[in-house]
Amino acid sequence: MEEKVQKAIQDDYPDDFAWCYGCGGLNKNGHHFRTGWLEDRTVTIYTPLQDHTAIPGFVYGGVIASLIDCHGTGSAALALHRKNGHEPGDGAEPPRFVTASLNVDFIKPTPQGVTLKAIGTAEEIHPKKWKVHTEVFADETLCARGEVVAVVIPSTFITNKK
Amino acid sequence: MEEKVQKAIQDDYPDDFAWCYGCGGLNKNGHHFRTGWLEDRTVTIYTPLQDHTAIPGFVYGGVIASLIDCHGTGSAALALHRKNGHEPGDGAEPPRFVTASLNVDFIKPTPQGVTLKAIGTAEEIHPKKWKVHTEVFADETLCARGEVVAVVIPSTFITNKK
Repeated sequence: MEEKVQKAIQDDYPDDFAWCYGCGGLNKNGHHFRTGWLEDRTVTIYTPLQDHTAIPGFVYGGVIASLIDCHGTGSAALALHRKNGHEPGDGAEPPRFVTASLNVDFIKPTPQGVTLKAIGTAEEIHPKKWKVHTEVFADETLCARGEVVAVVIPSTFITNKK
Repeated sequence: MEEKVQKAIQDDYPDDFAWCYGCGGLNKNGHHFRTGWLEDRTVTIYTPLQDHTAIPGFVYGGVIASLIDCHGTGSAALALHRKNGHEPGDGAEPPRFVTASLNVDFIKPTPQGVTLKAIGTAEEIHPKKWKVHTEVFADETLCARGEVVAVVIPSTFITNKK
């Protein structure tokens, strides 16, 4: 499996939407999650920092939840963008989603020092509402399973923008 | 309502368990969430950093999920500690929980620059397994609702510790 996402949906977000602590390219101190297609599934690859500890040796659950969260909104954006006839990098501005709900089951302790892969599928439940099912692997070990309901960004986010 | 938790359960965790990125007092770059009693409910008070952005002006969901996560394990520890006859600061070492599952519903966009309060109740579903129901408020506005299932730390975490 590729170790770096070549064409990520986040690379195509306009600057105003590129400040997300999870996946915004312009947020200097953020995680810089990048989500792309892996055939008909979606993938985000990330190596947690040493600071991202739960118990020494294991990754903090909040970072795994963050990975699943942004993987979810990114996957929903990829899926709707493809439905609209577009792929990352083709010059079209992708739709932007926010998270309505986030569920994470922590299945096994996630070891530190290992690159994590979040792999998911996006399911349309309404033209503006998608459900993304995600599994997080450390090497071949399934460590967490998540589900995100993502909705096309409502206008309240934009009108209230600072 | 108090603006600072006076006696937090995390203050009593032994050093080996004080490295959590969310709530470990020894993790220099972590969030330093601190959870204490508010009569028969539990509370964690936290002001997200400017970096913790989703869309400019609003707090990143992964940080809210992290707050709910550590508030959940801290609340479970408080509840079992009280069941065992102890209160934070009384010199007894508290039990330590890890998260089995984390569910977050994002109800309203969470404004930045506001101190958040996570307020919860802990429900025993097994002597070693507690469910914590949490609401996150920005001032008086309910922004997110969460549920954490927390379990007393399994021995695998400790034997695999670096």
